[in-house]
Amino acid sequence: MQKRVLVVSAVIAALTAGVVHAQAKPEDVIRYRQGVMKIVGWNFGPMAAMVKGEKPYDKEAFARNAANVEFVSKLALEGFSPGSDKGADTKAKPEIWAKMDDFKAKMGKMNEETAKLAAVAKTGTFDDIKKQFGATGGSCKACHDDYRNK
Amino acid sequence: MQKRVLVVSAVIAALTAGVVHAQAKPEDVIRYRQGVMKIVGWNFGPMAAMVKGEKPYDKEAFARNAANVEFVSKLALEGFSPGSDKGADTKAKPEIWAKMDDFKAKMGKMNEETAKLAAVAKTGTFDDIKKQFGATGGSCKACHDDYRNK
Repeated sequence: MQKRVLVVSAVIAALTAGVVHAQAKPEDVIRYRQGVMKIVGWNFGPMAAMVKGEKPYDKEAFARNAANVEFVSKLALEGFSPGSDKGADTKAKPEIWAKMDDFKAKMGKMNEETAKLAAVAKTGTFDDIKKQFGATGGSCKACHDDYRNK
Repeated sequence: MQKRVLVVSAVIAALTAGVVHAQAKPEDVIRYRQGVMKIVGWNFGPMAAMVKGEKPYDKEAFARNAANVEFVSKLALEGFSPGSDKGADTKAKPEIWAKMDDFKAKMGKMNEETAKLAAVAKTGTFDDIKKQFGATGGSCKACHDDYRNK
């Protein structure tokens, strides 16, 4: 067991670059939240293309994208820990940390809307899905407008 | 509805930078998979610290980290699409695309081991969890050794 832990430690060091969050460097936190946003965007893109009619509607693919966004978007908030307001090439505005309660509320609203989208994507009509996609996008926009530099 | 879609389109453009994967640029694919790996590493770090006794074992936190790794690691494979072997600052070796069947098999094994870790993290003893953490780390290492530049 001890040997196995030692072997694995090498790959863990490579994987995590020593990140334990209480001591995480601002740059690591920023890269983490940018990773979260990248995955959200990656899954949002095909849904948007379907909603706009640029791509044929594929129920299964849309539902998978929506489920991915629901799960991953819940991982975003911990990427805005105290002290991660500056560093790397962050587009996050300092207002996030100054108005953390409002930021958290908007994040929570977005999490609710993505959960609704994931639910309706499984069982709803495409019209229902499009409507909820609009509401979800609006909840993203609420934060981006206030808290993200262009 | 149409208006709402238009309003939302603006934020979608910002979120996705026009990514629809069939046409995704190699750099976008690379950033996506790096984002996936960043989230995996972010969640692996605290588990490793607990396994190594550098951090007190917190059952709930460990189980959450393990569930995150299980979910997000399943999103990795689509980040290795054809044509994304070169570009940005990728550490992925060209062997991935030359030996895609083996790469997929190793990814699949890793997905299995992360699922087992998430399961045992919820209900197992800490000794069981440590053992499965070792097996999971080993399945990460198998790919990193063969397919990732240092």
